[in-house]
Amino acid sequence: MCAEKLKNMRESNLIEWYNEVVLNAEVADFSEAKGFTVYRPYGYAMWEVLEEYLDVKFKAKGVKNTYFPLLIPEYLLKKEASHIKGFAPEVAWVTKGGDRDLDVKLAVRPTSETIMYDSYSRWVKSYRDLPILLNQWNTVVRWETKETRLFLRGREVLWQEGHCAFADNKSAEENTLDMLNIYKGAMEELLAVPVLVGRKSEAEKFAGAVATYTVETVLSNNFASQAATSHNLGQNFSKAFEIKFIDNNNQWNYVYQTSWGMSMRALGIMFLVHGDNKGLILPPRIAPIQVVAIPILNGKDDKMILKYANDVVSAIKSDGIRCELDSREGYTPGWKFNEYELKGVPIRLEIGIKEASAAKVSVKKRNEKEKTTLELKNIKMLKVALDEMQANMLKEARKSMESRIIIEKDTKNVISILKSAGAIVKTSWCGTEKCEETIKEKTGATSRVIPLENEKLISDKCTFCGDDAKYNAYFGQSY
Amino acid sequence: MCAEKLKNMRESNLIEWYNEVVLNAEVADFSEAKGFTVYRPYGYAMWEVLEEYLDVKFKAKGVKNTYFPLLIPEYLLKKEASHIKGFAPEVAWVTKGGDRDLDVKLAVRPTSETIMYDSYSRWVKSYRDLPILLNQWNTVVRWETKETRLFLRGREVLWQEGHCAFADNKSAEENTLDMLNIYKGAMEELLAVPVLVGRKSEAEKFAGAVATYTVETVLSNNFASQAATSHNLGQNFSKAFEIKFIDNNNQWNYVYQTSWGMSMRALGIMFLVHGDNKGLILPPRIAPIQVVAIPILNGKDDKMILKYANDVVSAIKSDGIRCELDSREGYTPGWKFNEYELKGVPIRLEIGIKEASAAKVSVKKRNEKEKTTLELKNIKMLKVALDEMQANMLKEARKSMESRIIIEKDTKNVISILKSAGAIVKTSWCGTEKCEETIKEKTGATSRVIPLENEKLISDKCTFCGDDAKYNAYFGQSY
Repeated sequence: MCAEKLKNMRESNLIEWYNEVVLNAEVADFSEAKGFTVYRPYGYAMWEVLEEYLDVKFKAKGVKNTYFPLLIPEYLLKKEASHIKGFAPEVAWVTKGGDRDLDVKLAVRPTSETIMYDSYSRWVKSYRDLPILLNQWNTVVRWETKETRLFLRGREVLWQEGHCAFADNKSAEENTLDMLNIYKGAMEELLAVPVLVGRKSEAEKFAGAVATYTVETVLSNNFASQAATSHNLGQNFSKAFEIKFIDNNNQWNYVYQTSWGMSMRALGIMFLVHGDNKGLILPPRIAPIQVVAIPILNGKDDKMILKYANDVVSAIKSDGIRCELDSREGYTPGWKFNEYELKGVPIRLEIGIKEASAAKVSVKKRNEKEKTTLELKNIKMLKVALDEMQANMLKEARKSMESRIIIEKDTKNVISILKSAGAIVKTSWCGTEKCEETIKEKTGATSRVIPLENEKLISDKCTFCGDDAKYNAYFGQSY
Repeated sequence: MCAEKLKNMRESNLIEWYNEVVLNAEVADFSEAKGFTVYRPYGYAMWEVLEEYLDVKFKAKGVKNTYFPLLIPEYLLKKEASHIKGFAPEVAWVTKGGDRDLDVKLAVRPTSETIMYDSYSRWVKSYRDLPILLNQWNTVVRWETKETRLFLRGREVLWQEGHCAFADNKSAEENTLDMLNIYKGAMEELLAVPVLVGRKSEAEKFAGAVATYTVETVLSNNFASQAATSHNLGQNFSKAFEIKFIDNNNQWNYVYQTSWGMSMRALGIMFLVHGDNKGLILPPRIAPIQVVAIPILNGKDDKMILKYANDVVSAIKSDGIRCELDSREGYTPGWKFNEYELKGVPIRLEIGIKEASAAKVSVKKRNEKEKTTLELKNIKMLKVALDEMQANMLKEARKSMESRIIIEKDTKNVISILKSAGAIVKTSWCGTEKCEETIKEKTGATSRVIPLENEKLISDKCTFCGDDAKYNAYFGQSY
């Protein structure tokens, strides 16, 4: 534990601040396995909350959990051409089992399409075997060569991957959008991070997908970050893997597929979006500790203060709030205040002789300056306070996001803003891969998301190449 | 799905019966990754129930979940000498990342002691940092060369691994036995499988442990099978990994450690212990579907029957029972009966016009021959019936286990029984590694468990070598 002041200021270097906070708050750690992250209990507990939220929503849509092998034979990975092209450069290969060289190289799963769909091809025979609605909670390995960013970028990623198969494209498209909507809910309701929802461009879509949908976030350095994706795979994989069924007209047909995933990266984005120069600020719904109570002892009334503090904590817990009493000796109250501010605990209670004798508690919210007082008989109001804090954090974050988006059609301006990461730019676009390549070369930025709704075009012409515009799109540097 | 009769009889070939049932009941499947298992939703749902049971018990002991890297650098794995000796022959090695050969070979985790304790050595400085109480839900890979047995033996195993560190040996020993006790509870309370609890011999203990404790089961072919283990690691790893702390007397000391694990193998054992020639019989507490309702339509009153069946199922669900209505068309009731018998669903309800018009249901328990009738107003009695079934299954299984254990001290008899797997033998033993080696050579059997209590010796002399006996122990062929 470390309750010293942070060395890095959030405003001057968001990423250095982030590294320092995530390490010091014991959310995650580096490891001897280079590029790999250790998810410490405090960080993992947040993943457990997110997991439970998503798991309930998935199951309500009829999805069931499953587990497929970690290692994938090379020939399976190669079956869908654009898929292997996308993943080959970043696969970790197992080539030895014990002392023996393997005949067939095995990929540590970078994603499970190929190993799962091979099974699907044996399981599906008739329309009665459809839909298949499966999800896995696992990790994937991708041989990142860029610097490790705990929770944001690393060689092993905690995530879930859903893989569904349907008799028709309409159901597949519906499923893709249902899941996108669940991800939007997780980001906004649970993590208090507002998102831009939409489609990815041809250049940015998943290797093997017909269409990729995304929930995209905006950071305070004006970078965009992708929080989750949902893919309509069409029949690309079912044709490669021969997943065929006899439909109710007695005709053979290939299934229509989807895959969708959210990773611990969503939590990394949340750390980046909230927080200040004292540390993390966790939205109450995701916080492993929602309320921490700290006794202020005076050496005279300690027994009575501790007894009262214990009673308060019991009362709060019985309201279903995740509440802890920190009565450790050898640490000053001030040290503890700093520690829980670093860890982003939403509400701190201070309980000394004054509070104990008046049946009160002093209340300090992590995102407000003033302390308030609450009578023990009104302790249920903490629930309301947590809910309010959750709603306010989303509102504030939405304001911040909106302030970083500029609608602009002047080519020069757009190029200059994108180059300097001055904002996320919404503009009209032709949507071609070629045009996107040029934009990337000129600015380093890419298209982030194309809105789902048919919006009125900002201009008839593409801001970048002057051809006819097809839709509006958001552009920005990405993290 | 396949609702035909099983080809293999349980009595004549337990293992072939097992393979057929696990495949046909869609509990698990083989995969293109040789030696690896696909855990299908029906099997994985049982793992989720077991996971939740254990997770709650672990957390009540203060254990928190964490996640450590999948890949372990070779030099870390080598740090504890007997550990690497035990695991080296069965490690899968990653030697390539993308197109490049790696400088350091990485082991796909066969177990996480080494990667975790490397972090512990950085995290622990003072007695205030202790205890560390961590658990991981993950998979481990061990390069099995024997034939794959779904859930029982394979190259990738779903499990949990707990890893704790303490300031003194007494706490470590307590923790080891606490966890052993939780495993005993899981086997008996949840899976209705009785266990023999005790210590492993020197030859059978974990690579790197001071003492290994086990919960051991007995199968109907008189083989023994280990369901979970809990290890007291002493200071073996803390000395190898330099996990030191300043104690409250200001002295440096090495921590005392434990590790403990239970895997999906526990479910495989449960399938083997219960079941008959129609398929699985699942104890209600682990069953993904506890009650299935099957409508018996007559083409005339279908709407009314289905409405009634739906009402019944809603009422049952509202009692917290996992209940499903199977109203699929195109399958006869008889076909469905077979299907759910194969899948081992504890209770089947039959609902036709007779039941619907009399506000009743016909009840068939998976482990009883006769059908009974239950009035809708007494539907809450299903809960009682499930509890009774759970208790009876454990009672029956205990009777069966006890009938397979022989207490014997005649050397010739013991050797002959062990050779032919005629029973599990309890006898007096010297406990030396040398003696165990000879027993294995002669019979193929090994010591399975040494009781924890100081029992009266069956004989003063070791049944096998004639030296002084140290304790009684159970011997048998193991699966």
